[in-house]
Amino acid sequence: MSKVAYPLKEKLLETYDESLNIDGICGERVAKRLHEIAQIGLTKDGGSNRPGFSKEELQAKQLVMKWMEEAGLTVVVDGAGNVFGRLAGKNDHKKAIISGSHVDSVPNGGHFDGVLGVVAALEVAEAWKETGYVPERPYEVVIFSDEEGARFNSGLLGSKAAVGAVSLDELLTFTDFQNVPFKEVLEKVGLDANEFVRSARDYSNDELYIEVHIEQGKRLEKNNLPCGIVSGIAGPYWIECTITGAAGHAGNTPMNDRRDALVAASEFIQAIHHIPEQISDSAVATVGKLEVNPNGINIIPGEVQLTIDTRDITRSNQEALGARIKEVGTEIRTKYGVDITFSDKAKVPPLEIRSEYIDELKEVFHELNIDPMLIPSGAGHDAMVIGEKIPSLMIFVQSKDGISHRPDEWSELNDCVQAIHVLKKFIEKRQ
Amino acid sequence: MSKVAYPLKEKLLETYDESLNIDGICGERVAKRLHEIAQIGLTKDGGSNRPGFSKEELQAKQLVMKWMEEAGLTVVVDGAGNVFGRLAGKNDHKKAIISGSHVDSVPNGGHFDGVLGVVAALEVAEAWKETGYVPERPYEVVIFSDEEGARFNSGLLGSKAAVGAVSLDELLTFTDFQNVPFKEVLEKVGLDANEFVRSARDYSNDELYIEVHIEQGKRLEKNNLPCGIVSGIAGPYWIECTITGAAGHAGNTPMNDRRDALVAASEFIQAIHHIPEQISDSAVATVGKLEVNPNGINIIPGEVQLTIDTRDITRSNQEALGARIKEVGTEIRTKYGVDITFSDKAKVPPLEIRSEYIDELKEVFHELNIDPMLIPSGAGHDAMVIGEKIPSLMIFVQSKDGISHRPDEWSELNDCVQAIHVLKKFIEKRQ
Repeated sequence: MSKVAYPLKEKLLETYDESLNIDGICGERVAKRLHEIAQIGLTKDGGSNRPGFSKEELQAKQLVMKWMEEAGLTVVVDGAGNVFGRLAGKNDHKKAIISGSHVDSVPNGGHFDGVLGVVAALEVAEAWKETGYVPERPYEVVIFSDEEGARFNSGLLGSKAAVGAVSLDELLTFTDFQNVPFKEVLEKVGLDANEFVRSARDYSNDELYIEVHIEQGKRLEKNNLPCGIVSGIAGPYWIECTITGAAGHAGNTPMNDRRDALVAASEFIQAIHHIPEQISDSAVATVGKLEVNPNGINIIPGEVQLTIDTRDITRSNQEALGARIKEVGTEIRTKYGVDITFSDKAKVPPLEIRSEYIDELKEVFHELNIDPMLIPSGAGHDAMVIGEKIPSLMIFVQSKDGISHRPDEWSELNDCVQAIHVLKKFIEKRQ
Repeated sequence: MSKVAYPLKEKLLETYDESLNIDGICGERVAKRLHEIAQIGLTKDGGSNRPGFSKEELQAKQLVMKWMEEAGLTVVVDGAGNVFGRLAGKNDHKKAIISGSHVDSVPNGGHFDGVLGVVAALEVAEAWKETGYVPERPYEVVIFSDEEGARFNSGLLGSKAAVGAVSLDELLTFTDFQNVPFKEVLEKVGLDANEFVRSARDYSNDELYIEVHIEQGKRLEKNNLPCGIVSGIAGPYWIECTITGAAGHAGNTPMNDRRDALVAASEFIQAIHHIPEQISDSAVATVGKLEVNPNGINIIPGEVQLTIDTRDITRSNQEALGARIKEVGTEIRTKYGVDITFSDKAKVPPLEIRSEYIDELKEVFHELNIDPMLIPSGAGHDAMVIGEKIPSLMIFVQSKDGISHRPDEWSELNDCVQAIHVLKKFIEKRQ
C-alpha cells in the first residue's frame, strides 16, 4: 500500500504567526513533530489509528524517545510501557515537575488528542536547551500507555498502572477487539503482564503533574481564546434506573387506566435535563442509554431501563446531582404509579484543582496577555488519575468545532504554541 | 404425558345463577363446551395452546362441527379452514345472519378469547332447537381460522380469506415460529394454499355479522355490567418517527449546547400522551417501541426512532389524531433544533358501526334489564374484517381485571350467558 501523503505540517504552518517563535519555542518543530507522529498509523481517511499496545503506539513512543534523548533527557520505560524522559535539575534532589500525555488514539481518531500534550511537554525542554536555561527542579516528560482504552474497552490503563490502581486478576480477564488476551497483546509489544502491575511510581519526589490537551469542546472557540485553564475534571457518576409500570394492549387500555413506563420515563428525562442548571455551570446530566420492554409497537411499555451519566468537578456537586435526580425519580413514582429503582454503577471522584494553582496559572495567562478562561473538563484524562497522588493541572487548547476522536480533529498551531508558552512559563515560575 | 385436570367447568358453575337458564339457553352446556375445548392444547399452566393451523385448532374445530351437526346445522368448510354451520330459515332465500368467532389461541393463552363467541353463537341454535323455534332467516355459526396470527406473526388470516383479502404471493413468503413454510403448515391440517386464496364468500345473501367476545379491558368490570355494546372497532394507525439531533460526549458538551434527540423525544412522548383526550373518549396513542442511537451510557443520543400506535373508532378521529401528533412533532423540531421525520407504517380503517344497529342492540339490553354501555374496541377482531362486506356488530363480555391472552383470562358464566341472551334476542328481532 502506498503511503497517504497527509500535509499536516504544511496545513499547520499555513496560518502560523512566527512572532510566537520566542524564548526558544519553535512552531515549525512542533508542526514537524505532530506531522511525523501522524504518519504512524495514518488511516485512509487521514486519521490516526494507534490503539493502546499496538505496534503503532510503540513506534510513536520510540520516535518520541529518540527526540527525548536528542534533547538530553534520560529515558526510562516502566512495566506498563509508560515512558519517562527526565531532565536533571540544578538541584536534582528537589521535587520534579512532570508533564505529558499519551500517543495512542481511538480507531480512526485525530492527530492532536494526546500527541499535542507530549510534543508540548518536550518542546519546553527543547526551548530550555535552545536558550541554555537549566531548571532548578528535575523535569520529566511522560507518555502514558493506552489512555483511550480502545483496545480493551477500558481506559487510562497506563496512568492507572503508574499509580498502582490495576489488578492482575482483572487485567487477565481482558481480551481486545480481535479477542486476543491481554497477556498476548502485551507480549507482542515487549511487555509482561506481571511487570505491568508492578509499575506504581513513588511520587514522594514529585511536585505536580501538568498536561496540555485539546479541549474537545467549543467553549474556547466560542470565546475566541487560544487556550484555557481546566478548573477541574468532572468525575462520571453513573446511575442505572429501572422504571416498572404495567404492560398492556395499546388498543384496549384507556388512556386514564395506564401505568406506561415510557411516559413516566419521558417526564423523568425532561426533569433530568434541567437539574444540572440548578447545581452549577459545570454540571451535566445525560440519559444516553435507554431500553424499552417489551418494545412492541402495540404494547404499552411495562418497563424502561435507562442510565444517567452525571458529572461535575467537585465531590459535593457530584453528590448533589445524584441526590436531586433520585429525588425527582421519587416524585415521578408517585405521579405515575410506577416503581423506580436506582443502582449506582460507577462513581469516579472528580479531580478538584486547588485555587492556588488556578491562581498561579491565571497569573501566567495574564503575563502572556491571554484571557484566563476557566473550563471544566467533562472527559477523563491521565491527569485525573495522577491527581490521586500529586496535584494535577491541565491546560486546554482550542478545538475546531469541538470535534475530537475523528480525522478532522483540529487545533491551530498558534493556539498550540501559545499553550506551550503558558506551560513553559508556569514551570519556570514553579522552580 | 398425563392430562392436566383443569376444573374449568366446575369453576364456571360455582357462581352460576340458574335462573338464567330460560328460553332454551343452558349455562351448564355453555360451561361444559368451554371446558371441553379447553382440554385441547391445555398447557401445564392451565392455559390454551392452539395456534392457527395446528392440529389442536383443527381438533377444536372438529369438536364444534360435531356439536353443529347434532344441533341440526349443515357444515361447510372453506379453503381457509373456516367452518360455517348453517341452520336453514323458514324463508331460506332471505339474507342470513352470521355469528361466531375463532378457536385458535395465542401460545399459553386463555379459554374465553374466541371460543366464547363460537359457543355463544351455537348456543343460540341449541336454544331454538330446545324451544322448537325456527328463524325466518337462515342462521350461520362460523369459526374463523387463525384469528390471533400467533403462527405467522400476522393475524385474522381466516376472515381475511373469507373476504378475499389475501394474496398467494404474500402468503407463500410466510414461515411459522418453527420456520415451517406456509404451504407445509397448511398441508399438515389438510388445507391447500391455492384453495386458501379462493375462499372469498359471496355476501350478497348475508344480512349481518355479530360476534360475542370478551372485552379484554376493564370498563365493564368497573361499571359492574355483564356485557356491553361495541361502539366501533378502532383501526390502528402506526406512525414511525425519526428524531435526529447531534451525538456528542456526555462530559464535554455543556447542557446549553446540545441537540439531544432523546430529550426532544421525551417531550414528544409527553405531548403524545395528552393528545387523545383532545380528540375523543375512545382515542388512544401509545409509543410502545423506541430505539436510541448510538445508545451509549456516555454519549448524547444523536437519533431516536419510535413508533406511535394511534387508534380511534371513526376515520375522521383517526385522521385528526395522526395530524395533531405530526403538528406537535413540528413544534418539538423548532424548540430543540432537531429534525423530525414521519412515515405512515400501517393504517387500518376503523369499523364504524351505524347508529341504527347500536339502537337496536340498546333496545335488547333494556328488555333484558342490562344497562347498555357503549365500549370502543381497541383491538382488531374478525368482525372488523367482515365489516368490510356486511354490517358487523360486537357484544363484549366482562373480563376479570381486563386480563387476556393469559391462562388466568376469566369471564363469569353469568356474564357469558347474559351476552348469549342478548345475541339470541337481537337475532330473533332481526328476522
